[in-house]
Amino acid sequence: MKQFDTWDFVLGSSSPRRQDLLGRLGLEFEIRTVDFDERISEDIALSEQPEILALRKSNQIELNSNRECLITSDTSVIFRNEILNKPQNKAEAMQMLSSLNGNWHEVVTGVCLRTAEGVLSFSESTQVHFRTMGQEFIEDYIDDYQPYDKAGSYGIQELFGYIVVDKIEGCYFNVMGLPLSRLYLEMEKFLGAQSGSQQS
Amino acid sequence: MKQFDTWDFVLGSSSPRRQDLLGRLGLEFEIRTVDFDERISEDIALSEQPEILALRKSNQIELNSNRECLITSDTSVIFRNEILNKPQNKAEAMQMLSSLNGNWHEVVTGVCLRTAEGVLSFSESTQVHFRTMGQEFIEDYIDDYQPYDKAGSYGIQELFGYIVVDKIEGCYFNVMGLPLSRLYLEMEKFLGAQSGSQQS
Repeated sequence: MKQFDTWDFVLGSSSPRRQDLLGRLGLEFEIRTVDFDERISEDIALSEQPEILALRKSNQIELNSNRECLITSDTSVIFRNEILNKPQNKAEAMQMLSSLNGNWHEVVTGVCLRTAEGVLSFSESTQVHFRTMGQEFIEDYIDDYQPYDKAGSYGIQELFGYIVVDKIEGCYFNVMGLPLSRLYLEMEKFLGAQSGSQQS
Repeated sequence: MKQFDTWDFVLGSSSPRRQDLLGRLGLEFEIRTVDFDERISEDIALSEQPEILALRKSNQIELNSNRECLITSDTSVIFRNEILNKPQNKAEAMQMLSSLNGNWHEVVTGVCLRTAEGVLSFSESTQVHFRTMGQEFIEDYIDDYQPYDKAGSYGIQELFGYIVVDKIEGCYFNVMGLPLSRLYLEMEKFLGAQSGSQQS
């Protein structure tokens, strides 16, 4: 991406999926992460939490030069006004997937861009539909794939996601962890407004 | 996929994208293609043509045993009641992408499953939205990526697609060439009903 050539990108995430996604935009970047407390006030609306967590992550990572643009993000799976986190055990995974079964749920990713000059944050929502599965199918999946590292107990970019997610409304990559098209658009606007004053 | 273990799958397509997609369902398969005349009567509704072409492809490929299940498919990009084929030249690619620019269009994939016992066909539609691009962006893309092998002049699974497709309604993989979730569901029903009588 020629227009971003003067920037050094930093991704504040250890997630291999996010690294893969950012790479799809043709960007080179460095990974820089910190340990992070994800607890957040219960007064904040669920759909706003990812953006606030992305901002908070951003504030805890140092920029090393005026050429750097830091990208942080956070993704939540929301069903009936409840956030589905990583399941603690098989019973919890069964419960999450049984509730998502045959229904729509929402995946919200919040993103924060930060340079020495400023900060921009935004969030994007995608509706995801699961087709109806039998209980045995769900149980086999949990036993075979052990989805204990996955919010909502599933990954859209794995066999289970290919079979079960029959339709979405919104950005597919947002569900994986970065809304690629929106991210590119916001980067263009945010960085474009700065390139004049950028030190090189 | 244990329930499909007794079948030998044959994919009637030379498209690397379709081969990649079918592989994502964890299936092993052989490729078997024929030269094929894609002309079709103008009396047939545009959204029905992919399914009819998938059926026609299926009928031209031989099954070699009672264990084989042949999968054929066809995908059309439809905008304002017109099918967008592969562009013949730069002017045509410019025209197609300029018309899709900032608008919704439809991608329809027709699929046909065939065994010695029977045939099943279906089709799936996905709505795709392009965000608004400048003419220069479109022209740079065509010059750099030469999308002359792509119906509608774009691939959703390439840099251009990542940047430009900001939302969809329906199945993402359907736009790439196979509606994975629907395909899996239909295979379960179609092959499940036959497994009792299958020779092994």
